[in-house]
Amino acid sequence: MHVISSISDMILARSRLKGTVGFVPTMGYLHEGHLSLMDKARQQTDNVIASIFVNPTQFGPEEDLDSYPRDFERDEKLAEEAGVDFIFYPDEQAMYPNGYASYVVPDGLDSHLCGAKRPGHFRGVMTIVLKLFNIIRPTDSYFGQKDIQQARILEQMTADFHLPIRMHIEPIVREKDGLAMSSRNVYLSPDEREAAVCLSRAIRLVESHFKDGEREAAVLLTKAEKEIQKQPLAIIDYVELVDYLTLAPLKNVTDRAILALAVYFGQTRLIDNTILE
Amino acid sequence: MHVISSISDMILARSRLKGTVGFVPTMGYLHEGHLSLMDKARQQTDNVIASIFVNPTQFGPEEDLDSYPRDFERDEKLAEEAGVDFIFYPDEQAMYPNGYASYVVPDGLDSHLCGAKRPGHFRGVMTIVLKLFNIIRPTDSYFGQKDIQQARILEQMTADFHLPIRMHIEPIVREKDGLAMSSRNVYLSPDEREAAVCLSRAIRLVESHFKDGEREAAVLLTKAEKEIQKQPLAIIDYVELVDYLTLAPLKNVTDRAILALAVYFGQTRLIDNTILE
Repeated sequence: MHVISSISDMILARSRLKGTVGFVPTMGYLHEGHLSLMDKARQQTDNVIASIFVNPTQFGPEEDLDSYPRDFERDEKLAEEAGVDFIFYPDEQAMYPNGYASYVVPDGLDSHLCGAKRPGHFRGVMTIVLKLFNIIRPTDSYFGQKDIQQARILEQMTADFHLPIRMHIEPIVREKDGLAMSSRNVYLSPDEREAAVCLSRAIRLVESHFKDGEREAAVLLTKAEKEIQKQPLAIIDYVELVDYLTLAPLKNVTDRAILALAVYFGQTRLIDNTILE
Repeated sequence: MHVISSISDMILARSRLKGTVGFVPTMGYLHEGHLSLMDKARQQTDNVIASIFVNPTQFGPEEDLDSYPRDFERDEKLAEEAGVDFIFYPDEQAMYPNGYASYVVPDGLDSHLCGAKRPGHFRGVMTIVLKLFNIIRPTDSYFGQKDIQQARILEQMTADFHLPIRMHIEPIVREKDGLAMSSRNVYLSPDEREAAVCLSRAIRLVESHFKDGEREAAVLLTKAEKEIQKQPLAIIDYVELVDYLTLAPLKNVTDRAILALAVYFGQTRLIDNTILE
């Protein structure tokens, strides 16, 4: 496995690759969720490139950019074990040099869910992913369903900008008790960690009512909210049921829909979701 | 010369080209300015592709999208004579289908000049040019200095997004009396056409004072304004002196700078500029 920090070296190394190139962009502090994406890329493509870059432009001024967990040595080892061929590990100054002035923004797809709560977040995400796509030129790129709004927005960007990249959205990987894997889980105190299982419980509850034929959003959302509110440590940021394509709130589930949750435990904000269809 | 309307046909035709590809994006209604860009591309690259697309997203709600002059048959003939190999001529629905949701925006470079007067204009320009770049995959692209803010913003976008495209900014082509070529010149009444020569006169006047050593922006701008105001039909939109790289207003010209003018003649808004160095 090679670690490349320079943009021009990465472009050069990419130009020498033959066959398909699977790409897994990450902010590092890898967990089973990331590794499952690397696995998939390893199975499906000839070359696997992962990037590790804590992207400053997707953090709000009040958010956890400085404290975001980092451990490059551990990440390197895990990526190598997962069969990654190249880690692209650029620095901030190279990605956003003085005079940097171009951003990608979503139109509409950020009006709800995390987009409504984290202004500018998806501008940062789209911008960095477009930049990484243009450096890496993957044939295939892998994203987790955990960040479903991100995945949808990037899927849309890839189509809108005519990028010849197959987008793969892979299932959420969970801890044994159901908590979705996240780099931010390390922030949780033991009590918060225990309480955090209410997200996946709420999701399973809604899935079960949906399976039994319930289609009214208000009813399904109330089930989820009540389940979360059983935990005094859980403070709901949002509980929403939106259309899969437009990410706009639904009154009734008629087509493919997303139940999405964001919940605070102390300072830590966790998200989770499920696709209802 | 081939005319291609379908995006997938254009991508396919491009993939079969060998050697360098020079690209000239236009909104049609070609004039000598466009043709000089095609000439340059013909001289410098192996294949020349021009696009003709009146891009709706760069027009404001009060602007001249519907009345923007169009004459495809004439354009086709002129492009063929200029040695263009392919015209890419997509329709609006293909470029902005239902659900379209991704845009490129400038950060800061649109705070002055036309950006300040035409909110959203450069969002539309950057978005369409990125889309065209991704479809055409040129090695070289040609822009006129006439739209200097556009050229700078696109040059910056190309660097910021790591696009492997050489950007060429070519000199303004002028009528015999000095009026910069523009598709919008057809809007001018005979009196307005005569008055419009004040733009290039103001530019030559400033150039001459700059050559004589004048560096103070206020002095140079006043010279330009007074020259334009000699024409009762001319209504100044802006007269500005900005830094070439940041496009921010200058007090004194110490480095490369742009004198940029936008002036209304009736409903018609004309722009012109010169680079002082």
